[in-house]
Amino acid sequence: MSEFDLIARIRARAGTRGDVVLGIGDDAALLQVPAGRQLAVSMDTLNAGVHFPGDTPPAAIGWKALAVNLSDLAAMGAQPAWCTLSLSLPQADDGWIDAFLDGFLALAARHDVALVGGDTTRGALSIGVTVHGLVEPGHALRRDGAQVGDEVWVTGTLGDAAAALSALQAGAALDRGLRERLDRPIPRIEAGRALAGMASACIDVSDGLLADLGHVCSASGVGAEVELGQLPASRMLARFPAATRWPWQAAGGDDYELCFTAPPARHDAIVRALRECDTAATCIGRTREGTGVHAITPDGDPWTPPRRGYAHFAG
Amino acid sequence: MSEFDLIARIRARAGTRGDVVLGIGDDAALLQVPAGRQLAVSMDTLNAGVHFPGDTPPAAIGWKALAVNLSDLAAMGAQPAWCTLSLSLPQADDGWIDAFLDGFLALAARHDVALVGGDTTRGALSIGVTVHGLVEPGHALRRDGAQVGDEVWVTGTLGDAAAALSALQAGAALDRGLRERLDRPIPRIEAGRALAGMASACIDVSDGLLADLGHVCSASGVGAEVELGQLPASRMLARFPAATRWPWQAAGGDDYELCFTAPPARHDAIVRALRECDTAATCIGRTREGTGVHAITPDGDPWTPPRRGYAHFAG
Repeated sequence: MSEFDLIARIRARAGTRGDVVLGIGDDAALLQVPAGRQLAVSMDTLNAGVHFPGDTPPAAIGWKALAVNLSDLAAMGAQPAWCTLSLSLPQADDGWIDAFLDGFLALAARHDVALVGGDTTRGALSIGVTVHGLVEPGHALRRDGAQVGDEVWVTGTLGDAAAALSALQAGAALDRGLRERLDRPIPRIEAGRALAGMASACIDVSDGLLADLGHVCSASGVGAEVELGQLPASRMLARFPAATRWPWQAAGGDDYELCFTAPPARHDAIVRALRECDTAATCIGRTREGTGVHAITPDGDPWTPPRRGYAHFAG
Repeated sequence: MSEFDLIARIRARAGTRGDVVLGIGDDAALLQVPAGRQLAVSMDTLNAGVHFPGDTPPAAIGWKALAVNLSDLAAMGAQPAWCTLSLSLPQADDGWIDAFLDGFLALAARHDVALVGGDTTRGALSIGVTVHGLVEPGHALRRDGAQVGDEVWVTGTLGDAAAALSALQAGAALDRGLRERLDRPIPRIEAGRALAGMASACIDVSDGLLADLGHVCSASGVGAEVELGQLPASRMLARFPAATRWPWQAAGGDDYELCFTAPPARHDAIVRALRECDTAATCIGRTREGTGVHAITPDGDPWTPPRRGYAHFAG
């Protein structure tokens, strides 16, 4: 299969939308941004062995490559519209490509995202995606808007993906539901849209709650306190003792939940807005004067995770 | 150097523009597309050893990674505006990064392109870039607009990059000017802008003239005839005999000139428009009924190159 056959194979399956003037097949895609909207753009690359385990099925790789990018749009409160895909492959294997596209395009269809361009190259397995979303001016959820005294929230549950990765690395038996959270994260698009113009700051939990909330705090010039006892856990994770769970929930990455801040006066409105889009959310702490994120046990003791999030190039 | 230090290093040097609402440092960039413009988006990844020789200096890698992407915008007639950068590196080396940014940002500054986001990851050396440009509705230079009887044109000169690559591969002595054409291609932005709304079809010469013109022909449903004797050569390349030169000029990639078609009635207007932006252009053939691109020697004989362009995954 040549590069052109590969592109033809992708093109035949890529969806479209009314605002795509020209999709795959020219030097660039042509897109019509509606009046009264700003463009939100994010780009993330996944490399085999770094961002997903080597045994990840191709459909899950396709899903996750788009999911982590859509999660960035969710964290901005943007409505996804278009994406481009840059695929580096050691060899062109049509079975692999078809399975990869199954996962990638299933998630794209769920959020009406059109795949409009990109390229394919020979190289180590690597998937680069750029996503484009639309957001009302002034409504985007930035990292730098948190105020002292805001409540700190998180959607869904935390720690499943880290628990799965931990079991994989230890060669331990692995709950299928946990592995699903690692392989097929659900970007919180609807929650992000509901929070746009309502939350004061937002980020998606990709590196770990404390690390990611730390980015919000440093961008906003505030500190934060997080109550470990309030961290939401799935039923799968709740079986583990707190001392085992907390590091996964507070410092494990790859959950792709939204962590956001909002004034306490908006507490009830936030609960209502997220309930309308079927998204659970939990208030887990408060912002405060100072710097840094401080985790507190139910006994009121300070707590530090064994490791803060995942840092490329660290150590 | 951690991933965050690396991003901070890039952020400190990235330029901005008035239409960048939010640049590097959040989950996504926020951009303001002006009313009455369509968005042109292209994404291309360069892998070490595939898209550039292993000994390419980091500043040239940075330049080329952006240049090949801007060349796609040039081929659409779009005005570049913003880019994102996804950098996979075996290790974070600040000297390498600084030199890479020297090249990347020098070209970005030349075309007023703001670097607004992206990511850095650990992995084999690979540079993914997505570029965004703006174009007037209906004026974009597509591949599918060529009509039978159009003239076929090319900007600048052809074959220098292929000659350089050929010398490198043979371990032969290499003219510095030729190597410069391989390492630091000049995207034909001004020419693309001048041709927008005037040429009937356009593509940039990245895989080789005959292959790329072939894409225009198949998209437009026409054939084409190219006169080898008309192919423009640099003074460096003109020293080589025709039989050596033609394969580089007709089938060598990496020139990043524009190949375009236009009705003969616009011949003089095209010459004038390109002269105004200091771009040489040569009429090298005609489109005709049928399919495929036919190269003809000055004696009127059909000619086939030893190899048609560069195809990933081929063979």
